[in-house]
Amino acid sequence: MSADPARPAPAPLAPGQLIARGVCRHLRDLGFACVEELVPTGGLRVDVMALGPRGEVWIVECKSSRADYTSDRKWQGYLDWCDRFFWAVGAEFPTDLLPAETGLILADGYGAEIVREAPEVRLAGARRKVVTQKFARHAALRLQALRDPVLSP
Amino acid sequence: MSADPARPAPAPLAPGQLIARGVCRHLRDLGFACVEELVPTGGLRVDVMALGPRGEVWIVECKSSRADYTSDRKWQGYLDWCDRFFWAVGAEFPTDLLPAETGLILADGYGAEIVREAPEVRLAGARRKVVTQKFARHAALRLQALRDPVLSP
Repeated sequence: MSADPARPAPAPLAPGQLIARGVCRHLRDLGFACVEELVPTGGLRVDVMALGPRGEVWIVECKSSRADYTSDRKWQGYLDWCDRFFWAVGAEFPTDLLPAETGLILADGYGAEIVREAPEVRLAGARRKVVTQKFARHAALRLQALRDPVLSP
Repeated sequence: MSADPARPAPAPLAPGQLIARGVCRHLRDLGFACVEELVPTGGLRVDVMALGPRGEVWIVECKSSRADYTSDRKWQGYLDWCDRFFWAVGAEFPTDLLPAETGLILADGYGAEIVREAPEVRLAGARRKVVTQKFARHAALRLQALRDPVLSP
C-alpha cells in the first residue's frame, strides 16, 4: 500500500490518547458528543469534555500510569467546569489511588466502560453557557482545520 | 504523486460547497467558528452556521445560481435560529433578486467578503441555548467521525 506523500501518516497515539479514544467511543454510544484537549481557562487543559443530549457537561481525565496521576496537581480545578467528573484508566491502573467521590471509567484504545458513576454537581447557568460556547467553538475550529486543506497543519 | 488506496480522494465540492468553504474561511478570520449543514429543526438544513466570540449566531445560505435561490422556499424559517442572516453568492449572481433586509456576502472557493451587513435580531436566551448546544454537538460528532478511523464513513 503506497502512502500519499501529501498526507503523512498521523503520529501513533500516546497511551493517554488511546484511553481518550476509547472513552469518546463509549460516550458517543451513550449519546454524548466529545472533544479532546479543550482549554476551559488558562492553565487547565481537559483530556475529554463530553456534552450530553440535555446539555450535561462531563469531564474525563485520562491517566495511563500511577506517575501520570500523581503528577497531576490540577484536577480539582476541573470540577468547576462540569456536572460530573471521571477518571479513565487502563485495566492495570491501581484504582485505589483515586478519590472515592469521583467517577471511574475503564478504557483502552477500542472502548470503555463506566465502573463508578460520578456524583452530579450541576453547573450554574452562566458557567454552563460559557463552557458550552467554548466546547462549540473548540469543536468547530478543529473540524474546519481537518476539512479545509488550506487550514490543515 | 501516488494516491493512498485506503483513503480515497474526496469528491469534488459542488458550487454551493465551494462558496461555503470561502465563507467559513473569511468568518474564521473574523473570529467565528463555523459548521456546515446543521439541522436546527426538522425540515431545515443550514448551509453555514457561525458562532462568534461573544456567542453571536449567524446563518449564511449559499446560492450558486438564480435557480438555486428561487427554489428555496424555506429561508425565512432560518431567521428564527440566528442573530443575523446572510446570503452568500458568487460574483456573477444577480444580487438584485435578494431581499434588501438580509446580509450579503460575495464568495468563491478561496475566500469571501461581506458586502452588506445583516440587521441584528437577537435570539431569545432559551433559543440561543438550544442552538448553541446543537452547534456544539454537531461539530463534535463530525470531528470525532473524522479523527477516529473506526467511526469514519
